[in-house]
Amino acid sequence: MTDGPYELQPIGWVESPLVALELAPKQGDEGSPEAWLVFEQGVSEGLRDLRAGTEVIVLTWLDRARRDVLSVHPRGDPANPEQGVFSTRSPGRPNPIGLHRVRIISIDGTRIRVQNLEALDGTPVVDVKPVLGPPRDR
Amino acid sequence: MTDGPYELQPIGWVESPLVALELAPKQGDEGSPEAWLVFEQGVSEGLRDLRAGTEVIVLTWLDRARRDVLSVHPRGDPANPEQGVFSTRSPGRPNPIGLHRVRIISIDGTRIRVQNLEALDGTPVVDVKPVLGPPRDR
Repeated sequence: MTDGPYELQPIGWVESPLVALELAPKQGDEGSPEAWLVFEQGVSEGLRDLRAGTEVIVLTWLDRARRDVLSVHPRGDPANPEQGVFSTRSPGRPNPIGLHRVRIISIDGTRIRVQNLEALDGTPVVDVKPVLGPPRDR
Repeated sequence: MTDGPYELQPIGWVESPLVALELAPKQGDEGSPEAWLVFEQGVSEGLRDLRAGTEVIVLTWLDRARRDVLSVHPRGDPANPEQGVFSTRSPGRPNPIGLHRVRIISIDGTRIRVQNLEALDGTPVVDVKPVLGPPRDR
């Protein structure tokens, strides 16, 4: 009954000091370093109303995650009882889309510097959306 | 510098009385009818810790949206000045991933009934994630 697959075409990628999966924070506000979102020139028109100082939701494709995972120990800690992946933010899941609430620090053409991004260096970016509603969810 | 494309494999689909794009609400809390998320049997293990009464974030693939759109009049209203799509929740965008905060009403095996979903009948579902942080964002 479901068609597909559908093709996700990256619109940019992450440049970050985070290169090792083991060392990356589990969530963006848990000590993530500042990072760049580097966009393809072809989507620059779509970026034109983004502003420094605002928060946005960034969607990534977690290209180093496993897709054959349906249960995990949350936060990778064996002391946490196993849970179905759809009740967790595990990167490993059938479609490893990362959802990140970040703050824009500065914008330099198609390069956007952000806070609170826990994605690894080289992670493909697939979408950016405005935050709706009051602050503090992600 | 970006690889891809990547393959998004639907894990289920939406069953909703919403069949016409023109009549669908712009956001989930703007009068959406109750709807079902119907999941593939193959992912049922991943659903096992979802609970009625809780809110989750559902990611869909907006299969009827245009992908060649980089600027839009927000909410489809020509009176709103055109904006770059990444500052809007327009369905039309390079990767039309829908982000929906919904409330689970009931669960019947791999069928999950939800409130506040503005996606059209037949829309593919690609992921479900828990809400982090306090209520009221989406």
